[in-house]
This record gives sequence, structure tokens and C-alpha cells, in this order.
Amino acid sequence: MASRPQGMPQESDFALDDVEVPEPDAGEVLVRSLYVSVDPYQRGRMSDRRSYARSLEVGDVITSQTVGEVVESRDPRFAPGDIAVGQLGWREHAVERAGSLRKVDPKLAPITTALHVLGGTGMTAWFGLFDVGRPRAGDTVVVSAAAGAVGQIVGQLARIAGCRTVGIAGGPEKCDDLRELYGYDAAIDYKGDDLRAALKDACPAGVDVYFDNVGGQVSAAVHSRLNVGARIAICGQVSQYNADRPEPTFHPGLLIVFRATMQGFLVSDYVSRFPEAYPRLARWVADGTLRYREDVTEGLENAPRAFIGMLNGENRGKALVKVAEPS
Amino acid sequence: MASRPQGMPQESDFALDDVEVPEPDAGEVLVRSLYVSVDPYQRGRMSDRRSYARSLEVGDVITSQTVGEVVESRDPRFAPGDIAVGQLGWREHAVERAGSLRKVDPKLAPITTALHVLGGTGMTAWFGLFDVGRPRAGDTVVVSAAAGAVGQIVGQLARIAGCRTVGIAGGPEKCDDLRELYGYDAAIDYKGDDLRAALKDACPAGVDVYFDNVGGQVSAAVHSRLNVGARIAICGQVSQYNADRPEPTFHPGLLIVFRATMQGFLVSDYVSRFPEAYPRLARWVADGTLRYREDVTEGLENAPRAFIGMLNGENRGKALVKVAEPS
Repeated sequence: MASRPQGMPQESDFALDDVEVPEPDAGEVLVRSLYVSVDPYQRGRMSDRRSYARSLEVGDVITSQTVGEVVESRDPRFAPGDIAVGQLGWREHAVERAGSLRKVDPKLAPITTALHVLGGTGMTAWFGLFDVGRPRAGDTVVVSAAAGAVGQIVGQLARIAGCRTVGIAGGPEKCDDLRELYGYDAAIDYKGDDLRAALKDACPAGVDVYFDNVGGQVSAAVHSRLNVGARIAICGQVSQYNADRPEPTFHPGLLIVFRATMQGFLVSDYVSRFPEAYPRLARWVADGTLRYREDVTEGLENAPRAFIGMLNGENRGKALVKVAEPS
Repeated sequence: MASRPQGMPQESDFALDDVEVPEPDAGEVLVRSLYVSVDPYQRGRMSDRRSYARSLEVGDVITSQTVGEVVESRDPRFAPGDIAVGQLGWREHAVERAGSLRKVDPKLAPITTALHVLGGTGMTAWFGLFDVGRPRAGDTVVVSAAAGAVGQIVGQLARIAGCRTVGIAGGPEKCDDLRELYGYDAAIDYKGDDLRAALKDACPAGVDVYFDNVGGQVSAAVHSRLNVGARIAICGQVSQYNADRPEPTFHPGLLIVFRATMQGFLVSDYVSRFPEAYPRLARWVADGTLRYREDVTEGLENAPRAFIGMLNGENRGKALVKVAEPS
């Protein structure tokens, strides 16, 4: 991070630096990055607003999950050639403690899935939907940013759980994906459709669960269709991340009217329970039940552009940056 | 209701009308009112904004719980002279189905308690605190409108449950009541104190449960002191009830930062569970564990003035109107 972004980040807020790669110590592993991740939460890290995680300082490496190939290992758990995923940041090489890396089986699924459906965004979808949203069969589940990395999984999990699924995304291509690729029962283009009218059509029995990735006016429209007892899972508020002050669009009195619950969550609080979710997600990826789309940008030097595009909603699928070819 | 109030109600929005009292039919009871209740939720009924209950129309009787004396009964469950409580409105006499009245034992506690600690506000405090707020021993529980009819009970129940209790009220007299009568560990005068500084002092370990009766800027200050995993029970938003459009002061992204839950509730959803709460509240009232203060206005014709005063925070204790003497 070359400078702290003000509002929408600019490419000039980022810089690619050459530094010496250290030798791994005992218990450490040297990893060569293959793919780094591009996610909305990274915008939060770039802000100095008080939040759940430490802010980045100018000169820090951008926080990211990275999947890479082990080049050198001083820990018995990893050998050269192994594929590993960890919090390595936007870097070409990184030395990391072996204990904070997870081995990825390239025969199970494409290794990039460790950065989404079989990684953080899959876990976010799973625990946010099932633990926070608590859907019951027959519920109507509405998802904002439904074509995004988390939203595409949430809709599919809710469908598997016997729910009617309604996805909101920007633009006709993403809405095609919602219906055709991710199997949403209805898709709403918040840019092109009359949002309130489309929600009314798509949710004839009201909204029981709202999985909210965006906040702002899109969410205000969904709130107007809640059912009594509705659950609102606050996963993200990406419409607000570039605002100096978040736009207040929500009044808590609404929760009385609908006896509704709004709960924020962080996937990191569920780490100890990832083993509940992982085997099922892996099975459903392997047998084709869970589908996903990736939006891959080539070259680490293009990560800032991919990130800005993602914040503008330009990606179609999980935004990734390919750093290098596997050997 | 003589006219629909715009903003703060005026006495001219109300009228006292003389009407013929009907004879009770089979299964009905004629009740002579002794006390009617004055509550914030009544302001909501006077609005035509969409809400959880039907709005009053001009000419309707103001909704109220009323405690009265049975004058004539055509149901075996009630006899003349019995004390009964029910949804009779601001009226001197009312005919009601016996099944929707509850008998009050005047030997157990003063009959007015059927309108507060042993009635709707006591149940609101109980279920809002224990079911929605879910306090654990050692938690810090903050209550807004803490000297109000609900708040005074919430603080005492939270203290019994082993919590640190912090009450927010307007003015030094109410804050005296918080500390001396209701046993709050700390009292904050939102009119006189520096609210944010006082909250910091009063909540050295942060806020685990916020029982919110008011909304607006008072709540925004409390939100800034939440702990991870905090629960916010939305009981009322009285600071907003006279606003044309509620003042948006809350941003859902805050719930992510604190992995917090905000839940609205209505006491009417817990009716089937009142028997869980009633015996304990009654015992604690009888043995002096639970204390309360009443603010009684004389004369049904003065109910509008009492109501407006309550909305302005002028009452000290549960606002009631005495309509007549028991026979």
C-alpha cells in the first residue's frame, strides 16, 4: 500500500516493490505464489477507521489469502512441490510458519478453489447462512451481491436447504449467472430493474432470510419486504466501504415491526468449526452440485486494477490474480 | 383520537366523548375503569405509518390496558366487585368478552401493578432482557429510558441475574431513582452528562447487552462501547416516534465489527409464555425485591396531558391515569 486510499482506491495507492526473500528458519516454509485473492474486506484493511482488524499502514503488504507452491520447507509437514494456502498477502514469494499454512490437494479440485468455495468465501457463505441466517425449508432467502464470491455459494447452499432463493446483482450478465449457473429461483438486476417492484414479484411470500453483502439502498429495499421473525445476516456492506461516513439508511425500529434479527459476523470466528463445513463443500464441488465462476486477472502487477474493478462490480465471479504458473 | 397527531401530539388531538354504555351480552362483562395506562407504544398506534398493529382512525378510543372493577357479569368467571385488567382503552366503562380479561388479586399487590410490573411492561422487561438480551452473570447491561416503566424493571432483573447495570435517563431526579430505588450500579443523565465520557466511565468492561427503548443519538453513543458478541434488544425507539421520518443514526456495518446481534421484539409474541415470568415477578414484588415508582395523574380528562408529558420525559415512574376510586 503506497498511500491510504481516500474514497475509491486508485492504482497509484499501490506499488510493486522488489525486496530480498528471506531464508526459511526451522518450522518455516518458502512458498511461491500462484494465485492471490481479491476481496471486498481488503478495502476495510486499507482504512484507518476502527474495525475488527488492525489497519494496514503505508508500506505494508496487502492482506490476502494466497495459494502457492512450496519451494523450500524446514518443517516435516511440507515438501517442495506441495500446494499450500495461507495468509501470504499480495506477494510473489513468502516465508511463513508451516503451522499457519494448509495443504491443498490438487486432485480434489482446482487449486484456486482453496481461495473461494473451499476457502474463506465458502466458509463465510456456510456459517453466515446456516448459523446466522438459520434458514428453514420453504423460507425465501434473498442475497445481495449474489454473483460475488460469497453470494454465489450462499444461493446454492440455500437451494440445497430447500429454500426459495432470490439473488440481487448488477447487470444482465451477472443475473444470467444467478439463474443459469448458480440456480437462483429469481434474479434481480439492481441497476436495470425497478428494485422494489422486482423484489415484490420475486418474493411473493416475503423475505425470511436476507444475506446482506452490500448495505445501502439495495438493502433498504429488501428490508421493506421482511417477514415477521426474519433474520438478516450482515456479511458485508460493500456499498459503504469507500464512503467517508457510512450512509445511514437503516432504522432499528424496523426490527420491532418485523420482530427481526440483524446479526453481523466474521468468518474468522468460526475457524474451529471449519471441519463441519469443509467435507460437504468439497463433496459438492467434486460432484458438481456446487458451481462457481472465477474472474482471473493475469499478473501480480495488475492486482490493484482487479481490486478496483471488483469494488466497481466489474468482476464476473470470484476475483483472483494469477501470479505464476505451477511448475 | 380527535385528529391524527403530526409530530408531538397536542391536547387538541384528543377529545372526551359521552356515549351510551351497552348492556353486556352472554359471555361479556361490564367493567368500570379505575386506572388506565399511558405508554410510548400508543404514539405508534396514532400514526398511519405501516407497523405491527393496525393504526387508530380518527374517532377511535385510544388503545390502553385498563384495570377496573366488574360492575355486571354475564360470564361465570367474573362477579361484580372483581378486579380485572384488559385492553379496554381510555374509557370510564367498557364491555368486554370475559375471556380477554384477566382477574387481578388485590391482596397480592396494589392493583395498579397489573398495568406495569405485573402486566405488560413487566413482561416486556422479562422477555426482552432474558430472551432477546440473553445476559450472562458478569455482563454489563445498559438500559436506555431506564427510569421508565420497562427500564426500571429491566435493570432490577439484570442485577438479580448477576449483571453490572447501567441506566440512562434524563435529569438528576430520575438518575437518583436509578441508583437509589432501582439499584442500578451506575446512572447516566443524558441531558446533563457528557454521554460518551460517562458511558466510558460506567462501562469499563464494555457493553454486553443494550436494552434500547429510545434509539437516536443516545443509542449511537452506546453502540460505540459494544463488546464483541453484544446483544441489542430493540424494545422501543421513543426518540423517533414523533419524527416524520426516523432519524437514521445506525449503520449495520457496526454489527460486523462487534459480531453483534440487534433484535426487535414485541411482548405480544410471548403471551403464551407469560406464565414463566409471572410467578417470579409476583414473588419479587411481594417480598420487596422488585421496586417500582408510579406517576399517577388524576382524571381521565387529563390522560392526553399525561401522555404528552410522558413523551417529553416528564413522568417519574410508570405513567398512569386514575379514572375512579374503587367502590
